[in-house]
Amino acid sequence: MKAVVYHGPGQKSWEDVPNPTLQDPTDVIAKVDTTTICGTDLHILKGDVPAVEKGRILGHEAVGTITEVGSAVTTLSVGDRIIIPAITNCGKCSYCKKNQPSHCQTVGGVGWIFGHLIDGTQAEYVRIPYAETSVHKVPEGLSDEQVLFLTDALPTGFEIGILNGSTKPGDTVAVVGAGPVGLGSIMTANLCGAGRVIAVDMDENRLAKARELGATHTVNASDSDAVEQIKALSHDGLGVDVAIEAVGIPATFTTCTQIVRPYGSIANVGVHGKPVELPLNDLWISNVRLTMGLVDCSSVPNLLNMVASGRLDAAAMATHRFTMDQFMEAYDLFENAAKNQAVKVVVSAS
Amino acid sequence: MKAVVYHGPGQKSWEDVPNPTLQDPTDVIAKVDTTTICGTDLHILKGDVPAVEKGRILGHEAVGTITEVGSAVTTLSVGDRIIIPAITNCGKCSYCKKNQPSHCQTVGGVGWIFGHLIDGTQAEYVRIPYAETSVHKVPEGLSDEQVLFLTDALPTGFEIGILNGSTKPGDTVAVVGAGPVGLGSIMTANLCGAGRVIAVDMDENRLAKARELGATHTVNASDSDAVEQIKALSHDGLGVDVAIEAVGIPATFTTCTQIVRPYGSIANVGVHGKPVELPLNDLWISNVRLTMGLVDCSSVPNLLNMVASGRLDAAAMATHRFTMDQFMEAYDLFENAAKNQAVKVVVSAS
Amino acid sequence: MKAVVYHGPGQKSWEDVPNPTLQDPTDVIAKVDTTTICGTDLHILKGDVPAVEKGRILGHEAVGTITEVGSAVTTLSVGDRIIIPAITNCGKCSYCKKNQPSHCQTVGGVGWIFGHLIDGTQAEYVRIPYAETSVHKVPEGLSDEQVLFLTDALPTGFEIGILNGSTKPGDTVAVVGAGPVGLGSIMTANLCGAGRVIAVDMDENRLAKARELGATHTVNASDSDAVEQIKALSHDGLGVDVAIEAVGIPATFTTCTQIVRPYGSIANVGVHGKPVELPLNDLWISNVRLTMGLVDCSSVPNLLNMVASGRLDAAAMATHRFTMDQFMEAYDLFENAAKNQAVKVVVSAS
Amino acid sequence: MKAVVYHGPGQKSWEDVPNPTLQDPTDVIAKVDTTTICGTDLHILKGDVPAVEKGRILGHEAVGTITEVGSAVTTLSVGDRIIIPAITNCGKCSYCKKNQPSHCQTVGGVGWIFGHLIDGTQAEYVRIPYAETSVHKVPEGLSDEQVLFLTDALPTGFEIGILNGSTKPGDTVAVVGAGPVGLGSIMTANLCGAGRVIAVDMDENRLAKARELGATHTVNASDSDAVEQIKALSHDGLGVDVAIEAVGIPATFTTCTQIVRPYGSIANVGVHGKPVELPLNDLWISNVRLTMGLVDCSSVPNLLNMVASGRLDAAAMATHRFTMDQFMEAYDLFENAAKNQAVKVVVSAS
Repeated sequence: MKAVVYHGPGQKSWEDVPNPTLQDPTDVIAKVDTTTICGTDLHILKGDVPAVEKGRILGHEAVGTITEVGSAVTTLSVGDRIIIPAITNCGKCSYCKKNQPSHCQTVGGVGWIFGHLIDGTQAEYVRIPYAETSVHKVPEGLSDEQVLFLTDALPTGFEIGILNGSTKPGDTVAVVGAGPVGLGSIMTANLCGAGRVIAVDMDENRLAKARELGATHTVNASDSDAVEQIKALSHDGLGVDVAIEAVGIPATFTTCTQIVRPYGSIANVGVHGKPVELPLNDLWISNVRLTMGLVDCSSVPNLLNMVASGRLDAAAMATHRFTMDQFMEAYDLFENAAKNQAVKVVVSAS
Repeated sequence: MKAVVYHGPGQKSWEDVPNPTLQDPTDVIAKVDTTTICGTDLHILKGDVPAVEKGRILGHEAVGTITEVGSAVTTLSVGDRIIIPAITNCGKCSYCKKNQPSHCQTVGGVGWIFGHLIDGTQAEYVRIPYAETSVHKVPEGLSDEQVLFLTDALPTGFEIGILNGSTKPGDTVAVVGAGPVGLGSIMTANLCGAGRVIAVDMDENRLAKARELGATHTVNASDSDAVEQIKALSHDGLGVDVAIEAVGIPATFTTCTQIVRPYGSIANVGVHGKPVELPLNDLWISNVRLTMGLVDCSSVPNLLNMVASGRLDAAAMATHRFTMDQFMEAYDLFENAAKNQAVKVVVSAS
Repeated sequence: MKAVVYHGPGQKSWEDVPNPTLQDPTDVIAKVDTTTICGTDLHILKGDVPAVEKGRILGHEAVGTITEVGSAVTTLSVGDRIIIPAITNCGKCSYCKKNQPSHCQTVGGVGWIFGHLIDGTQAEYVRIPYAETSVHKVPEGLSDEQVLFLTDALPTGFEIGILNGSTKPGDTVAVVGAGPVGLGSIMTANLCGAGRVIAVDMDENRLAKARELGATHTVNASDSDAVEQIKALSHDGLGVDVAIEAVGIPATFTTCTQIVRPYGSIANVGVHGKPVELPLNDLWISNVRLTMGLVDCSSVPNLLNMVASGRLDAAAMATHRFTMDQFMEAYDLFENAAKNQAVKVVVSAS
Repeated sequence: MKAVVYHGPGQKSWEDVPNPTLQDPTDVIAKVDTTTICGTDLHILKGDVPAVEKGRILGHEAVGTITEVGSAVTTLSVGDRIIIPAITNCGKCSYCKKNQPSHCQTVGGVGWIFGHLIDGTQAEYVRIPYAETSVHKVPEGLSDEQVLFLTDALPTGFEIGILNGSTKPGDTVAVVGAGPVGLGSIMTANLCGAGRVIAVDMDENRLAKARELGATHTVNASDSDAVEQIKALSHDGLGVDVAIEAVGIPATFTTCTQIVRPYGSIANVGVHGKPVELPLNDLWISNVRLTMGLVDCSSVPNLLNMVASGRLDAAAMATHRFTMDQFMEAYDLFENAAKNQAVKVVVSAS
């Protein structure tokens, strides 16, 4: 089969590799029907994720069709269309039993292993360990594109942004950074009853996209009074109830500490490469909660219900479409996402 | 001034009474600009609420304008437009300190006193005890009608139905009874991310109104297979996540016990006149939660945020409008609500 | 091997049966080192649980040692000492993924299958389906008796009584019924910070045992003013915060409705054979929560931590000890538990 | 009367001042029977809290007896013995209505005003604004010393440490810093069912005190492998469930980030004078929650219940006793708390 193979920093290709085979009784093999590219894949290609070895097939988001099932698998069958989320859930370690597979102790202490510790989904076929506890059947009548972003961007924006931020009915939520994951927070903020959803970014195109996907207000982060503008949009001027950091750099983290109200929450979603300064000298008295973390994908069944009932237009994140033989072009475009006004690309089996 | 005065079962009139005066330093007096009639007022008139003495002014829902303030009042001023909720909050008993004024120990063990233990709001003026902890200022730009139903029907539907039912994103919610309070649940179900909202009633007009106000599905309770229809609408056929009883009779309570899934919730909102049978022989194993209670109106600030941000069309509950000198006609109409396709009436100062 | 076999109402024997064998890749076989008898076993013997077929081996609580593992099992090994809880957790249905195996959809809609839908633990050996997601390794240094009651009575008292009742620091908790499960609530009430723990029973021996195991106060349910005595023990006389029903008859359920304060909880733990009357005409206004259900055993890891750190003396429930060849004598004694001042019996491999 | 008056950095005296008088209808005046000194008072005397003006009477913790009540006060009477907590609760702003008076908007945006923005409790008499919503009556039979530390150290340790840390039954809790507030966390950890409570400090005397007050384990922070020792005490070696920072310097904050497990909590209790570095490059993936804040004293009623039922020995924090005319000696001793093995001093009316 063909797959996107990582050959070290800056090097990748769409090339022939052996087909995957069943290794454990709890595995399944699936044909990949549709996959996408994540910002994390770009980080790997920069050499920022040393655990990824040369020869690794990239990708951790896909919709596929099962072609083989292991001997212990009873609830999945050949031919089932499935959502393959970014996170593998062994179902039996202390974390997975609490539905916290982000820290699955069985597969390596962290639940993200596709395209990281094992071969991933940017391929014609993929082996899926612990399949019964990790994947979800696609409800009848939903297209691949309607469920593809439930593998990572939407549950991350929802779980790590909106839910970790304890968003409650009537809350004002500011999302700092309107890339795919920030948009995932914006698209799901109303599931917890957010009153106002303020998108904050420096790129006017992204702010326009944010309004299209559910932001009620936007603030350009380049404005010198951006912090004051955001606070003025809170219902009493004291700051927002929930500040979501969706970039991953010290400056946007600092913005979040400046706009949050006493008793509010900062939910960090961004992947950071450096420590940040936390002004505990000011904030110790503030009764603020700060959360951070990797997605569990535990919200996928609920998000699926919302897509199936027409209340969540999950496909709206897709801006560009490719077939697998155009995978290198898809990467080129996504590497220049801002210039190309790209949010997420859809890459389908040829 | 003029007011609706209760003279015993079946007897009421719009008549002259003395104007209210300040009694305690924490009181305010307000001119009533807009008020409405509640199903509870009809219960009183049937003689079902013996605590209501002859001579009592009825009504517990209003929007008004402050005309006098007590000596201890510092945060309200003459001229302020205010929402006067059904519940009085003394702010200082053990219940009110926990924001549970439904059981205020200071005003009599129950927080509903207007038109019950003290004179109410179906009058030209009303005395409001513990005003600073009980009322809410009307945000600029909102009309009386946009906030009137935040005094009782909407917070009751939301707090006692949706919130007590622990509604979570993606949940299927069935509301049994599409009167004003059931519609309050239907209108606010999406604040907690309900995936499907099923209205259940025997009156097709009410079901049509329910669809207009947010129900995604309706089931006619007269159908012999109504229970099966409702369960079939749940995402896996096992039953609904949240069953809201909004009628107050044994039959609808029983329906709720039949449609709720294992680990689901029954939220009783209806005012019952008789005990009900609870089939604990079947349900002891079911991991079902059953809640019941009087509204606290603690959600009013959040609901106000939602109205102000345009996300909750609270005025949609109004179907008929009167001026105060037509108060007896308003009662006539509301006493035949189903026949008149009435949900809530608005009664404004002449 | 030998086992306790059910032969229809009133009939059981300790007799020869074939040894269990592995059936599925996720099974293990364990030698039963220690087991016990549950009140539910007595119900079965009365013929009250028709799902139990003749020929079934009884029992759903044991500590054992693994003798064989299925091909998909990776985290358990031959020789491991394990706690075998009453509830089977498939790990992969929608309920088990949420750690709610009481309603496991894979094994039959209810997670209690040992000694019910499949052969149980009152035997020399037992087959354990879905072993990796169901059992717990016994920490070094703990005896069988220290962990035996973590299979059912203690987690039931804790999860269905104390946790379902939302017990909070400082709360007054009344436990109506001081049998094994009620004592399980009493022994674990302090894990949630209960201030006062009131045991209510008609048997003075049981009340004495309750005091020994953690009750701070006792009330004899035969007293005509028992309800008043219990309410007088609440911190302000309004009633208890948490009322736990641990008998399973209408009278004790009614007591719970009479002693609970506004905004309190009734947690039903008892197994009921008849419907109960719920006085919603009085309680609709009370803001009371009523819960009910079968244990998930999800608290076992936490309870194990408490036993291991010496903070929970789980063995204190054992009052009588037998070897397996005395199984019929153990049943005789337990069938007359009150007369024999028995709480739980321990039955060990001969 | 006499009082401890602040005269600028390093300067204080026990001197004659005018008696306080009622200013608002919601005020009461109380005779101070017993008070104490807080670490914050020492900060003020170092000049670290510029909002404190010269001439201010210090102190924010007391037990007293009411001598005068304002005209709007109905639930307190002359002669009532009361606990006067550190936090003033206006009862009517948006924060106080949610029982979050730490950020009372009426009294200045922060609820700590005694000995800060208004005259405090280190005096023979004190004026108490918003008395009905701020103070608590002392239950019969409890001594001043049994309730004195419920004014600040115990609720701070409990609310900001144990509760903010989401401590659950079976959890391992590490408290870094065994001063008064850290000991407050240690003394209340079992109210939430902590399995292990690890005290961490560099002073062996304090560690001994911590063991006396409830720590199950101690680690000397001077040990080069202190972090490893702490992690080894967690039930699976992955780190503690709750890490409580109770010092207020970068080094101890860093320790907390090193000992917390994935999905654990860091609860900052310490008052910080400098920003800290937060290693989000490591922690973004960790699913850790970090909380911080000023106490609300909302737990005082529950803690009072625990003291009254004999389950919390709140007086155990007292190590030294003085009368008010020895106030300067009390300060001398407390300023050298470690050398004097002092935890809290009790200063009583002469």
